[in-house]
Amino acid sequence: MDIATVLGMILGATFVFLAVREDIGTFMDLSSVYITVGGTLGASMISFGMSDLLNVFAVTRNAFFNKKRDQSQIISSMVDLGEKARREGILALEREMPRIDDDFLKKALQLAVDGNEPEIIETVMGTEVENMEERHKIGKSFWETVGSMGPAWGMIGTLIGLIMMLKSLDDPSNIGAGMAVALITTLYGSIIANLFAIPLSNKLDRRSKEDALLMNMVLFGVLSIHSGDNPRVTREKLETFLAPKLRKGNN
Amino acid sequence: MDIATVLGMILGATFVFLAVREDIGTFMDLSSVYITVGGTLGASMISFGMSDLLNVFAVTRNAFFNKKRDQSQIISSMVDLGEKARREGILALEREMPRIDDDFLKKALQLAVDGNEPEIIETVMGTEVENMEERHKIGKSFWETVGSMGPAWGMIGTLIGLIMMLKSLDDPSNIGAGMAVALITTLYGSIIANLFAIPLSNKLDRRSKEDALLMNMVLFGVLSIHSGDNPRVTREKLETFLAPKLRKGNN
Amino acid sequence: MDIATVLGMILGATFVFLAVREDIGTFMDLSSVYITVGGTLGASMISFGMSDLLNVFAVTRNAFFNKKRDQSQIISSMVDLGEKARREGILALEREMPRIDDDFLKKALQLAVDGNEPEIIETVMGTEVENMEERHKIGKSFWETVGSMGPAWGMIGTLIGLIMMLKSLDDPSNIGAGMAVALITTLYGSIIANLFAIPLSNKLDRRSKEDALLMNMVLFGVLSIHSGDNPRVTREKLETFLAPKLRKGNN
Amino acid sequence: MDIATVLGMILGATFVFLAVREDIGTFMDLSSVYITVGGTLGASMISFGMSDLLNVFAVTRNAFFNKKRDQSQIISSMVDLGEKARREGILALEREMPRIDDDFLKKALQLAVDGNEPEIIETVMGTEVENMEERHKIGKSFWETVGSMGPAWGMIGTLIGLIMMLKSLDDPSNIGAGMAVALITTLYGSIIANLFAIPLSNKLDRRSKEDALLMNMVLFGVLSIHSGDNPRVTREKLETFLAPKLRKGNN
Amino acid sequence: MDIATVLGMILGATFVFLAVREDIGTFMDLSSVYITVGGTLGASMISFGMSDLLNVFAVTRNAFFNKKRDQSQIISSMVDLGEKARREGILALEREMPRIDDDFLKKALQLAVDGNEPEIIETVMGTEVENMEERHKIGKSFWETVGSMGPAWGMIGTLIGLIMMLKSLDDPSNIGAGMAVALITTLYGSIIANLFAIPLSNKLDRRSKEDALLMNMVLFGVLSIHSGDNPRVTREKLETFLAPKLRKGNN
Repeated sequence: MDIATVLGMILGATFVFLAVREDIGTFMDLSSVYITVGGTLGASMISFGMSDLLNVFAVTRNAFFNKKRDQSQIISSMVDLGEKARREGILALEREMPRIDDDFLKKALQLAVDGNEPEIIETVMGTEVENMEERHKIGKSFWETVGSMGPAWGMIGTLIGLIMMLKSLDDPSNIGAGMAVALITTLYGSIIANLFAIPLSNKLDRRSKEDALLMNMVLFGVLSIHSGDNPRVTREKLETFLAPKLRKGNN
Repeated sequence: MDIATVLGMILGATFVFLAVREDIGTFMDLSSVYITVGGTLGASMISFGMSDLLNVFAVTRNAFFNKKRDQSQIISSMVDLGEKARREGILALEREMPRIDDDFLKKALQLAVDGNEPEIIETVMGTEVENMEERHKIGKSFWETVGSMGPAWGMIGTLIGLIMMLKSLDDPSNIGAGMAVALITTLYGSIIANLFAIPLSNKLDRRSKEDALLMNMVLFGVLSIHSGDNPRVTREKLETFLAPKLRKGNN
Repeated sequence: MDIATVLGMILGATFVFLAVREDIGTFMDLSSVYITVGGTLGASMISFGMSDLLNVFAVTRNAFFNKKRDQSQIISSMVDLGEKARREGILALEREMPRIDDDFLKKALQLAVDGNEPEIIETVMGTEVENMEERHKIGKSFWETVGSMGPAWGMIGTLIGLIMMLKSLDDPSNIGAGMAVALITTLYGSIIANLFAIPLSNKLDRRSKEDALLMNMVLFGVLSIHSGDNPRVTREKLETFLAPKLRKGNN
Repeated sequence: MDIATVLGMILGATFVFLAVREDIGTFMDLSSVYITVGGTLGASMISFGMSDLLNVFAVTRNAFFNKKRDQSQIISSMVDLGEKARREGILALEREMPRIDDDFLKKALQLAVDGNEPEIIETVMGTEVENMEERHKIGKSFWETVGSMGPAWGMIGTLIGLIMMLKSLDDPSNIGAGMAVALITTLYGSIIANLFAIPLSNKLDRRSKEDALLMNMVLFGVLSIHSGDNPRVTREKLETFLAPKLRKGNN
Repeated sequence: MDIATVLGMILGATFVFLAVREDIGTFMDLSSVYITVGGTLGASMISFGMSDLLNVFAVTRNAFFNKKRDQSQIISSMVDLGEKARREGILALEREMPRIDDDFLKKALQLAVDGNEPEIIETVMGTEVENMEERHKIGKSFWETVGSMGPAWGMIGTLIGLIMMLKSLDDPSNIGAGMAVALITTLYGSIIANLFAIPLSNKLDRRSKEDALLMNMVLFGVLSIHSGDNPRVTREKLETFLAPKLRKGNN
């Protein structure tokens, strides 16, 4: 569970609630929900096909749950594998396979054990990383679309409200109430965008980049093992991915 | 038929209709249609040449109809071709040609059967993918232009309406009605942009990327067959394009 | 003559005229022209040097006139040249030179006939394409600048008008007329941007990309001839630039 | 201490204070702080994970403190190292290590002394630079997010305030005071963005680019030493990084 | 002196002056200057370090003064050098050095005369061009920052003015004057951005690209001479940088 995502949403929602709580009835308006949410949903359905929309939910889970894979731990296990490969030959890694959880590492090691050239390993696993990023982009770009469609449909709702209010303007004392209702859709659209859609899009983007970075670390490590590097060198190469203070090789 | 595109448009239009239905006469204003649609159309005609405009309709059909080509099925047929090529030699694929529907696969296979170098196959078919994407970009960029011109001309209409209303301001009680009419063009422009143009532009962009991905898969597969890869390796290489859970090679 | 550019401008201008025609005197305001056009012109002069400004007019002509070079025709003539080169040797193309109109093709062929390596031909003619695109970018970026400066200076005019009107607000009944005048500059700026500058910038961008595509086709063809490809192969390579339905090689 | 960052903040804050000082009570509104800061904080927490948020503070320090590493001085010390390596062999640089402060230079030299190929040194140290830039991007993109969320949540606060004020509009004489309060959140959001977040984001971006440039200079120098260049050539190569007037090699 | 930069500023300023001249006292407001200019300056100081700010003035001079280096003349002198090198050997160019003004050409020729490989010349001089562009970017990005901070701080000033005016709203007849004063900061910010900052940023960007183009021409020419090209070929290669009508080689 990524506590920051959930806490952030609760925090934002709480402050919105506190700001409106004295007058909460005013801010609950069903027809404003219809036009803002309905329009945003319609535009998103056009933008993405049905099958993409179904994927979005699976991908969005990444914003709430993360596996907390530790970079230092990946380095340690790569160095262990490297030592074993140096002592007993790269084929000995075949016996380690069942103990490895990470599918990406498993596949890369299998390619190395099978005796493929480094270029092949790099191409196949690199395509794997690229395609993973491509799939994750659906989540990012779905929420980006919601983040721009929300305020746009909020404004459409406000325009409709304003036009109706202005047209039937008999009693000037009603202007205030009419404008208040008209503005509610803009408020809804802004909250959809700035409390949910844009932050989720940002988070999914970061998560995807983090995953790609870890995969590239693993690939870099497998290539280093495959080329017969001294495990100390493998560690040093991999630690270029860490912030200086987290490195052990410097001690 | 891509049901999401049609459903999305119906959904959005329905919610707009529900919001305005009590007062629908107010929202139907012919001269507002003229300035918003006419201006947007004029600006789009300048931006694109006549021949491009005619292409736009053909390309836009892609947003409504999709051939639903299945990635797993492409992989299976590539693996089948690979097995045949391994057993009977790559020339045997010549006999498979008539059964192949996909022009892209056909052309790539023909190049392979004709004994061209992999670099040639990659260059020729890669140019094919690039040029397909280039042609599809016209659709995306046409609707993008409409999506930015719609609101701009809506605002021009509103400015014209406001100036006329303010100038002849004898009776303050007319302000409301005048502003209401002036705002209708902005509403039209926003709906053109956010219910049709921008979502269609998004969809065409995604569709083009999906097509390019499938073509790259096919090309990747033909090159793998051509280089004499074991069909199991061909499958593994192609499955890097799939989400992990859809892969068979892992079982 | 590119009819779409001219028709688009007439169409847009007509709809603006129809919208304002009843009250056209209101919309003609010389001091509004001064601040909007003068400011936009000043900002554009700073952005571009004198010599660039003079080039802009030459480049902008491309938006109105196009040579209508037909892709299929280029392919045919490349295939003809290829057949001649195959039958009589590449030096025989020297005799074809005087009949060739297109300077780019002429120069590329000359380089081939002179016996240069394909890398040299690709570098020299590729630099030619890049530099052509670089020169054409001046037109695109000039109109882009006008398209963002127009509305900005329109708003400056409106701010000046509003401040003067608000300051000397003795008689509330004058507010309307004052605001109407103030808004005219914003209207001018929007029309400059959305009827002329942005569409012209789009068009010049497309025209430049089309020219580059044709040049790349020609270069691709000359390299194919130079490498002694069978004319059928030359046609097939070049037809990757066409939409599938326009190809002859498939028949 | 980077005096410009601190001075700039004091300058901006002072001018804001001078503008509001006569009426400062009006501008202090706790519930406006809640919605603007709370919403911005919530959205930022969702966008970034907890661990990233903790890193942000460490990275942001770079905007306030800089080590003032001098390019000319780096060149001098690289040239000194180059002379020593030429006279006594590259292994002699091992003895210089303890005197070197800069970890990046140390690591690059160690790789050179250990007899690695230039390609290895370039790859390992290049990855080091890339990963440093990747880490620094968190700071830049955090403040960028704050810079766009601040005004967005300011507008949400203003919308809430406007709606409440308009709804309960009994006494027209209260409109002014209500709107004043509603606008305060927009003011807060603008100040958060334009006095702190966006300038800090700009500064962190520049600082990161400067660091990368210095690292690339050092790497360029080590590679030059490693390839046995004459120290005069090393100086000339490194001075391409300096503005012409700062170069000594030209004298 | 680049006359267009100065003329453009005078033109824009004149039209602003003409628009406000009847009521110029209204538009001169010292506290509006403080908040707009002070805030913009503060934000720019944070964004750039002190040393960068000092460089900005040196770089900005490029927008006002240009050396008017003529492309055709560069080609002629490169062709002359090429002829001399062909007749008397490349070492003969050493004697031409003192007559050459352009430091970039001098350095590139020196590298050629010293017998360096073309790859070395390309790398060293290419780094020179890149670093020149990097230094010039400070000017462009400083004025870009001012161009976005000006209007932002103008709006902050307007918000402060509006809030103060609305809060102390006793006499409705003061609304006009209060709003007028509040809007002045937005006007100042817009003029700073659209008359000075954005156009200067555009100009510096173009100037930097022109310089890079000329340097690349010179480098291209030196490499052509170094490879022993016939001077006619050197001219032809260099003329790919010119618009077709300016070329002599075609005659």
